[in-house]
Amino acid sequence: MTQPLRLGIAGLGTVGAGVVKIIRQKANLLAERAGRPIVITAVSARSKAKDRGVNLSDYAWEDDPVALAKRDDVDVFVELMGGSDGPAKAATEAAIAAGKDIVTANKALLAHHGHALALSAEEAGRVIRFEAAVAGGIPVIKALTEGLAGNDIHRVMGVMNGTCNYILTRMQSAGLPYDEVFEEANQLGYLEADPNLDVGGIDAGHKLSLLAAIAFGTQVDFDAVELEGIQAITIEDIHQAADMGFRIKLLGVCQMTGRGLEQRMSPCLVPDTSPLGQLEGGTNMCVLEGDNVEQIVLRGAGAGEGPTASAVMGDVMDIARGFRMPVFGRPAAGLERAKPARATTPAPYYLRMELEDKPGALAKVAKELGEAGISIDRMRQYQHDVSTAPVLIVTHKTTRTALDTALEAMQRLEVVAGKPVALRIESV
Amino acid sequence: MTQPLRLGIAGLGTVGAGVVKIIRQKANLLAERAGRPIVITAVSARSKAKDRGVNLSDYAWEDDPVALAKRDDVDVFVELMGGSDGPAKAATEAAIAAGKDIVTANKALLAHHGHALALSAEEAGRVIRFEAAVAGGIPVIKALTEGLAGNDIHRVMGVMNGTCNYILTRMQSAGLPYDEVFEEANQLGYLEADPNLDVGGIDAGHKLSLLAAIAFGTQVDFDAVELEGIQAITIEDIHQAADMGFRIKLLGVCQMTGRGLEQRMSPCLVPDTSPLGQLEGGTNMCVLEGDNVEQIVLRGAGAGEGPTASAVMGDVMDIARGFRMPVFGRPAAGLERAKPARATTPAPYYLRMELEDKPGALAKVAKELGEAGISIDRMRQYQHDVSTAPVLIVTHKTTRTALDTALEAMQRLEVVAGKPVALRIESV
Repeated sequence: MTQPLRLGIAGLGTVGAGVVKIIRQKANLLAERAGRPIVITAVSARSKAKDRGVNLSDYAWEDDPVALAKRDDVDVFVELMGGSDGPAKAATEAAIAAGKDIVTANKALLAHHGHALALSAEEAGRVIRFEAAVAGGIPVIKALTEGLAGNDIHRVMGVMNGTCNYILTRMQSAGLPYDEVFEEANQLGYLEADPNLDVGGIDAGHKLSLLAAIAFGTQVDFDAVELEGIQAITIEDIHQAADMGFRIKLLGVCQMTGRGLEQRMSPCLVPDTSPLGQLEGGTNMCVLEGDNVEQIVLRGAGAGEGPTASAVMGDVMDIARGFRMPVFGRPAAGLERAKPARATTPAPYYLRMELEDKPGALAKVAKELGEAGISIDRMRQYQHDVSTAPVLIVTHKTTRTALDTALEAMQRLEVVAGKPVALRIESV
Repeated sequence: MTQPLRLGIAGLGTVGAGVVKIIRQKANLLAERAGRPIVITAVSARSKAKDRGVNLSDYAWEDDPVALAKRDDVDVFVELMGGSDGPAKAATEAAIAAGKDIVTANKALLAHHGHALALSAEEAGRVIRFEAAVAGGIPVIKALTEGLAGNDIHRVMGVMNGTCNYILTRMQSAGLPYDEVFEEANQLGYLEADPNLDVGGIDAGHKLSLLAAIAFGTQVDFDAVELEGIQAITIEDIHQAADMGFRIKLLGVCQMTGRGLEQRMSPCLVPDTSPLGQLEGGTNMCVLEGDNVEQIVLRGAGAGEGPTASAVMGDVMDIARGFRMPVFGRPAAGLERAKPARATTPAPYYLRMELEDKPGALAKVAKELGEAGISIDRMRQYQHDVSTAPVLIVTHKTTRTALDTALEAMQRLEVVAGKPVALRIESV
């Protein structure tokens, strides 16, 4: 197999331009490693005129990514446009129909339509690879699907949104409130056009749903991901957690239990001495737990031109080398939808609520916890300069169901102002 | 391709028994993932009578691994005997000659004969996969050769001997001297029959030479690895390093420079806040640095039945899925031997030496450093209750060549007793 592998690249933003650069600069190295040349035959993007710092004159130009996807001189359609629907979906479907393999960085597309796309790709005998869709340059899809193929996976965890981790660690290091650091991140260009994709946990949730599908052999099911963003985290939460030896992370956890598949993307407390706890700034981390391999931790840049283009190239090289496997590691036609489960493994929780500064307020809260069968490990009330006082409670291990019962009862209490914040203390 | 993949397993120690267990317990899962059944047809080990806690009655038994390697009903020869020569080598060669693919956990065999074996395997159109030979369950070969295939690799580092890391971290946590912890490790069964394989850095050096070959596209060249064990590390070194914010690790570093290929396996100081610095006990860590991906850190169990068998199974599954590539990532016939280079990148060094407690002794040492062009960052002399006094020096950045010149000159000084210890402070 010494025929060149011919790529058609749709989307020439940061990542697309990065891929073009690698293929231009490393032609010999890539050919030597793949056993055949890797070439670009055609590209497509919104504006042909825009200067992207790369020479595109050798490649055919298509205004329409669907036309690119159908070209006879394209073997692999590289989809770097983004977006769960619209042109990315149309072009990917067209590419599959035209018998192309797919490499994509598009987590939203796969989170929403991954199962349908996998079905049609596999029916057509084509592959879809998506290493770049999860945790940037970290080869986590490869590690999980291939390296750990001899394991029953117990749990997969990840800090997979660099912007959220930047915001949370910056709040701590600079002692700044959420709103201020959010604004800072915005100024630095770290946030998506719709910031809720980042701080609402949606982007990281997309990634988690892909990891869950390959880890547990189920249909990708983003709608079943329990999503909670970091918007409610205060600097007080961060300080209090630190005081107790924890860090707050937007942590994705997926786990198959007797009651169903848990997929949770939410702010959690993790020990500050753990690899997850020590993760600073925009770096990503994935933790893979299997029955044989025990625990594997992978750490690296979760975004940016180089790291993401590196992941795209890993997939391109696999295809060039003739590696072919089902999209989610097992034939899509045989994948079932898992029953979704809330957090079933008991864990301690961190609670923060505002209590009316009235006699007996705390007792009422404690009573609700007790009635739900939840015992209190630590409780702390601080500041008394306003009419309400923040109260912190760390519970002993409890189920999420019991906790939800208690939280609902508390919200009905007149002495509790607003919605209590409840963060799981994840055992890592 | 739905024919079963038929394995012949030579070596039924911890890892071999682990592989048999996985294949027996996960037959359906493995078949679903690989698209075909994985079966064992024959096994071989020293003693047929020994109880290994697994049922071997379904498999043909061969006393001679060479006979196993040649069997018609074996597609993949799984070599888990160990040893750089003798039966492991003979059987692997026989398997290649008989047209079998190879999966091996044998770092010594590949470090010494990897190039020759790769040449003959590739000529025969067979693959050799060796994920289990490096860093136990961590899929580092896969990450480097496949996931990071779009990168020029700049540097690869690793803590890849769990026993050494156990000894060094235990010395620190328990405040015990080297000899005592060594004995403890021995009692716990952590040491190889020849402990020098561990504490002399040989085992980790084997692994480093394999990583260097795939990272830089050169012939594996274990003889060019600069080897220094941990035997000279004292509890004083560990405390002093800790005082300055460092940890001492048996660190493998390989790096291609203008002057040649550096392969160093030696105790180094690394910042205690870095992932490498924070690595405790028997856990392994590999750090991969590429021009696009930046830095990827992989952490996991470096030994043991489950993790190592997991790595073996990753390779088996790759072969079952039809992944085929050159042994070291590029055709062996085109690999050249790199010119070996000593540490060419300047770095600060930590020095410890015993000085006669005489006036002017320190000045003489300082003079030799100065004449070699090495400036001193910190110097500390402590304890005066014996005739010699330990002196610690941390230099500013210097080359290893300049340092060697200074060290030689120092050893000629009458005031310096014994050989100074010099540890590189590696920038991680």
